[in-house]
Amino acid sequence: MPGESDIIREYFAGAPTRGDVSLGIGDDAACVTAGDATLAVCVDALVEGVHFPAGTPARAIGHRAVAVNLSDLAACGATPLWLTLALAMPRADTRWLADFRAGFFELANAHGASLVGGDTVRGPLQVTVQAIGRVHERPLQRDGGSPGDDVYVSGPLGDAAGGLRFVARDDLNHPLASRFLYPTPRVSLGTALAPWATACIDVSDGLAVDLERLARASGGGAVLELDALPLSDALRATFKHEEAQYLALNGGDDYELCFAVPRAERERFEGWCRENGHRVFRIGRLDHGDALVLTANGEVVTRPLAGFDHFADGSD
Amino acid sequence: MPGESDIIREYFAGAPTRGDVSLGIGDDAACVTAGDATLAVCVDALVEGVHFPAGTPARAIGHRAVAVNLSDLAACGATPLWLTLALAMPRADTRWLADFRAGFFELANAHGASLVGGDTVRGPLQVTVQAIGRVHERPLQRDGGSPGDDVYVSGPLGDAAGGLRFVARDDLNHPLASRFLYPTPRVSLGTALAPWATACIDVSDGLAVDLERLARASGGGAVLELDALPLSDALRATFKHEEAQYLALNGGDDYELCFAVPRAERERFEGWCRENGHRVFRIGRLDHGDALVLTANGEVVTRPLAGFDHFADGSD
Repeated sequence: MPGESDIIREYFAGAPTRGDVSLGIGDDAACVTAGDATLAVCVDALVEGVHFPAGTPARAIGHRAVAVNLSDLAACGATPLWLTLALAMPRADTRWLADFRAGFFELANAHGASLVGGDTVRGPLQVTVQAIGRVHERPLQRDGGSPGDDVYVSGPLGDAAGGLRFVARDDLNHPLASRFLYPTPRVSLGTALAPWATACIDVSDGLAVDLERLARASGGGAVLELDALPLSDALRATFKHEEAQYLALNGGDDYELCFAVPRAERERFEGWCRENGHRVFRIGRLDHGDALVLTANGEVVTRPLAGFDHFADGSD
Repeated sequence: MPGESDIIREYFAGAPTRGDVSLGIGDDAACVTAGDATLAVCVDALVEGVHFPAGTPARAIGHRAVAVNLSDLAACGATPLWLTLALAMPRADTRWLADFRAGFFELANAHGASLVGGDTVRGPLQVTVQAIGRVHERPLQRDGGSPGDDVYVSGPLGDAAGGLRFVARDDLNHPLASRFLYPTPRVSLGTALAPWATACIDVSDGLAVDLERLARASGGGAVLELDALPLSDALRATFKHEEAQYLALNGGDDYELCFAVPRAERERFEGWCRENGHRVFRIGRLDHGDALVLTANGEVVTRPLAGFDHFADGSD
């Protein structure tokens, strides 16, 4: 039974590739060359019952469909330009459409991204957005890190996974719910990281999984200091510490950036972040290992880990 | 109850648009400017049970997902460059994936198009492909025709709709079935039409609907000579004449191009087509009217018409 990463690698990554494709399948976004421009291209599909529970507000679905793609572009350091939308829905409900539209354009417009193409079809609710952005200096990739680089994340983790539990039982007013429903793609940070970051990924499937992906792509491992994990006050107030830490390590959907910066740049980089209002949290470092190692007070510890893979969950 | 065109116009066409979008939502593909390049961007989603019957071979689904998008690019005169794929499927079936992959890449590779991004998710079977192409001279659009222009199509019509009836009852060996399963996007014709055509559309929803769209976008009507409609031998052999003509007028999924060429260019254009191996059929002309008029031997006639709209079929 192949998993999602295997499916992409085995079935879709091996075909002949044009010379104008500088970064193909496997990173957060692909990079292509069009004339004198370098573009980043990504696609994400959201399926009802898989990526969001039935009953999720339409405005949130519209927001999330844009957010997950802008997050992919941010992880590559690309400025959003254009979006396309394929919207499958069981029936054309005008109220639902108006709400979806509001959520979609609130976020797209805030980042100057234009919807240029669309397809609406009848079918089970599924929203597929594709985003194209412009890369100005060089694209951020997963594979540029080196042992010793500091590892940062751009915001508290676990809130979205915690919030999902309340959304799933229709408690949309819980303080964590909005972190699942309306994630914030870190566009301005992503587009400013090129001079600093050696590698970058967005946390969509859970920090443990995504940081290990970054570390492996960079040819090594990583050490993650559990006490450094940023946990929001709302998460701490809602869950016991162990559960909050589990959500921060394993919960997906936060759409924070996780990236590596050379140790020698630490002071300059953190100063630049403070001056420019970018909130970042140093949570560990890349190393020469071949896996993700967790530490607490400098001691290696083990914690339950559970990555997210659509096709490797044992249910078929 | 809004229809599909209304949904796109009412809900998704009114947002602020970047200055680098030269042709937005509403044509076969959008046109955008990236540095010194003009790109065409389109998206099409195929849903099981809507766009193809359950049981359609995976190889055909892969082929069709690419074909419908290359056809959109062809209708804009764009050369295919890059594709993204969002594939939702209920389970990861390795045999199905291998067949899907074969159909997808056979057609993509034949046109030099690279798959650069993908997302595989668990969900009801749905295939969304987005294509980006390069526009070399000027984009072909729907709205450039003038009264008096000749109207052409690039191949016989009705075969796909006729073939679907056999596919739906699992008779995949009928001669018409392959015209539904493996449509041929008219890429080389589309990319060569820029010097000739004033307006162009691909026949995806049925000739009557799509030609009327082209005529209205061009500010007029059209006259279609029924006796000039190209019908394949297989279609004639399978259906009575009246039924074959109905399929040619109303059946979707043929993915032939329908385009307008100034009357004064008729002899030069048709000579150029013969010299370059492009098969075209002159089927009528644009006029000053406001609708599609059908004629037989020069006399105005009426025939049953049935356009395709996902959300205006009265079923909810």
